[in-house]
Amino acid sequence: MKPDFEKLVKKLQTTASIQQVDRLLGWDEQVNLPPGSAETRARQMAAMADVLYERRTDPELGNLIDSLIAESGSLSQDELRIVKLAKKDFDEEQCLNTEFVARRASAMSQSYHAWVEARQSGNFKSFAPFLQEQIDLAKEYAELCGAENAYNFWIDKHDPGMSQESITRLFEPLQAELIPIVNTIEASSQSKPIQDFKDFPVADQESFLRKVISGLGFDFNQGRLDRSIHPFCSGSGQDIRMTTRFFEDNPLDSLFSSIHEAGHGMYEQGLPTAWYGTALGEDAGMGVHESQSRLWENQVARSRPFWKFWESTYREAFPSQLETLTSEDLYRAVNAVRVIPIRVDSDEVTYNLHIILRFRLEKQLFSGEISVEQLPEAWRALAKEILGLDLTDDTQGCLQDVHWSGGAFGYFPSYTLGNMMAAQIWYALEDQIEDLEVQMAQGNFQEILSWLKENIHAQGRRMNIEELTKQATGHELGHTDLIRYLKERYLPLYAN
Amino acid sequence: MKPDFEKLVKKLQTTASIQQVDRLLGWDEQVNLPPGSAETRARQMAAMADVLYERRTDPELGNLIDSLIAESGSLSQDELRIVKLAKKDFDEEQCLNTEFVARRASAMSQSYHAWVEARQSGNFKSFAPFLQEQIDLAKEYAELCGAENAYNFWIDKHDPGMSQESITRLFEPLQAELIPIVNTIEASSQSKPIQDFKDFPVADQESFLRKVISGLGFDFNQGRLDRSIHPFCSGSGQDIRMTTRFFEDNPLDSLFSSIHEAGHGMYEQGLPTAWYGTALGEDAGMGVHESQSRLWENQVARSRPFWKFWESTYREAFPSQLETLTSEDLYRAVNAVRVIPIRVDSDEVTYNLHIILRFRLEKQLFSGEISVEQLPEAWRALAKEILGLDLTDDTQGCLQDVHWSGGAFGYFPSYTLGNMMAAQIWYALEDQIEDLEVQMAQGNFQEILSWLKENIHAQGRRMNIEELTKQATGHELGHTDLIRYLKERYLPLYAN
Repeated sequence: MKPDFEKLVKKLQTTASIQQVDRLLGWDEQVNLPPGSAETRARQMAAMADVLYERRTDPELGNLIDSLIAESGSLSQDELRIVKLAKKDFDEEQCLNTEFVARRASAMSQSYHAWVEARQSGNFKSFAPFLQEQIDLAKEYAELCGAENAYNFWIDKHDPGMSQESITRLFEPLQAELIPIVNTIEASSQSKPIQDFKDFPVADQESFLRKVISGLGFDFNQGRLDRSIHPFCSGSGQDIRMTTRFFEDNPLDSLFSSIHEAGHGMYEQGLPTAWYGTALGEDAGMGVHESQSRLWENQVARSRPFWKFWESTYREAFPSQLETLTSEDLYRAVNAVRVIPIRVDSDEVTYNLHIILRFRLEKQLFSGEISVEQLPEAWRALAKEILGLDLTDDTQGCLQDVHWSGGAFGYFPSYTLGNMMAAQIWYALEDQIEDLEVQMAQGNFQEILSWLKENIHAQGRRMNIEELTKQATGHELGHTDLIRYLKERYLPLYAN
Repeated sequence: MKPDFEKLVKKLQTTASIQQVDRLLGWDEQVNLPPGSAETRARQMAAMADVLYERRTDPELGNLIDSLIAESGSLSQDELRIVKLAKKDFDEEQCLNTEFVARRASAMSQSYHAWVEARQSGNFKSFAPFLQEQIDLAKEYAELCGAENAYNFWIDKHDPGMSQESITRLFEPLQAELIPIVNTIEASSQSKPIQDFKDFPVADQESFLRKVISGLGFDFNQGRLDRSIHPFCSGSGQDIRMTTRFFEDNPLDSLFSSIHEAGHGMYEQGLPTAWYGTALGEDAGMGVHESQSRLWENQVARSRPFWKFWESTYREAFPSQLETLTSEDLYRAVNAVRVIPIRVDSDEVTYNLHIILRFRLEKQLFSGEISVEQLPEAWRALAKEILGLDLTDDTQGCLQDVHWSGGAFGYFPSYTLGNMMAAQIWYALEDQIEDLEVQMAQGNFQEILSWLKENIHAQGRRMNIEELTKQATGHELGHTDLIRYLKERYLPLYAN
């Protein structure tokens, strides 16, 4: 390595290590923080934010990057990618001033609390001015960074290279083909909840869960599973911290959300450690991350071969609770589909319609086609159009998600981009691993993980979601494999 | 506050917050870190060390302190104390160069591993060169900081204001009066282990322990208790993290070491939060810290009134295990005295002799009176002289403690300084709280904690251990109250 390039990598990696510490603080806050210690933690996080901001906007870093760009002819393609992304990150940090950062942080905190209250009372009007402020701040942010289109700026932040135009082209045919599938399922005589799960002791759930996650390939030698109110996956590289929560009467919730988080964790564990903090060792964006969690959660863990292997262990753990269930009952419970107003409780079929709804509203809010005041009505209209639901209560509608209260716009589409990519990966796996289903039915998931490591994880942030999907699966990112997968998995279950 | 002074406080507090984060990393390493994540954590800690070093040696900080000292006439006494200690800390950071810091860190790590190996094999010779290097580095460190005497420099770092001369004056009469007490106990027909504790389930131990610690006044709303291989108390201010470990066949070990750590924790919880990071909100040094842990562990929790209250709860938790023990048996088990070679397993009577032994050897090692090669023999000679023990094995002698392998010289005396201070505080409490024993026998420890908060904790780092002891107890720091306490507690038990 050239000395200047080596110096840049060292700087980026030190900053990445500090950011890892910052994330550990976040994990600790959710998992360990004593109730009366919030103020102390807030001061610590503010101090760490200062440290990170200082490092990321350090003029010396900027000069180093610029001098490397000036002599870019002598850099390899990978080195150039590292330098260019460092430049992009630096410029984005640089364009914000401390006044704006502080104003935005303060507005976010107020907005979050306003949202919590509004959701409790069901009163959207009290939240509306805060949402307006978040949209204004998101636009101001994009403008400060010199972006032409604010919504595209935010999409690109989550999924580099994507835009509302490219996502619209992906989502429109998806919506058109999804709605008839959902209608077929809804009309089916089979589409009823078929089993109440009751009295699954938490300790036994956790023990089964750990077996499953280890069996899939999550490395507990470099990761942990703890409990928190909302499941998440944090940590990085060689120290993954994921969390879950258990309900005695809803064991599938914790099982599948944990497999989901383990999918995120295995992605992070598969990133090239030596290059952490640079484009070669970082994740390729939200959509790609989501493709990994969704693949393990849905394509793998809701499949017949998966349950062929794990069912006996599950029954050993919960003999009396599962006594009255046939294997088919269990499989149907795992793949139950219901159109409901709440996104986070939705199944993998209807989930995408919830995302499309939000994407269409975000576009309209940013273009000015609808105002914040019109949001509740616009949400209801779309819920009727896309989901066939008659909503009366905004807590079941536009007040249900935390995202917008924290200024997270352009984030929702990543979920469905991830679902599309996961389905494409799934068919690539089916093509390339001859006895895929046999292996899975024998509890052997190694070849899946190896394929993901080589084709996705090892690529780091070299490519964006479209480039990476194309290279890994041989096909352009699109809706057809997702539709094919959902039809193959769900139509046989809801045929009549 | 004057703007410059306010600016200084803000700088110190931000650094303190970052240091708290650094400590949380240390806690997390002992409590949570997955086995394969050590490398990642080492990089994080190195990055944090860089951040802290940069902040502590920031020339802007130095200029700010100097300008405040120049106009010190306008500062209050408390403000001046803050500025002066900030100056002392800054100068000490300043005098080290990065080459030395890196060299010392690397030597420490090697030395620690050499010590671990030497202790396993019992081969002091293999550790000797590393110990020599640690002594040389400690001397170089002191010299870089302009200290006249290296050992005094290190003592002052742990207990500001103390020196080998002042400690010798305290320890000589202590040794002289302690040895006859130990001899009396040893000669007593009562000085045998009277009970084997067996099969105390860990969950029940923990549940009892939490009740006791809460009962003493540790605030679990701003603190936690977790498990680690070695018990410790970390965290700060409003977020105290203490740890313990449990042995089914040695429940008293965990109980008393946890009460000890809770004593440290209550001290930290009692420091003036608003002034964290400055002389008004920090602890007054190792000896004072140890006085708090020892007071709760020994004077309080090994007393008859304490057990008068807690015995019934203890018996409820372990009915069959304690069935054959009378109250007197239990009290004697809690106050068992045995002369043994290992410091950490020793009781509060003989513990001080172990400390005196180490203090005398540290003095000799630093003055050159003995060489590192002569240490094993010198240790054995002193063990014979002070403890009456014939040691044959260095793992029972000079290889038993981790401290010196990490360059922690001048640290051992703090333990006994703390014991002295604790005994003095105890008699001050007896003087000032009329029905102290009655309150304790009723499970009421609030007045003790209130007294400590007001007279010790609230003082922060305003005074050193001698000044603080004098102000809080009305007497000079000395050995007489410790001797009086040990006689009153132990001689009645071992009278014949």
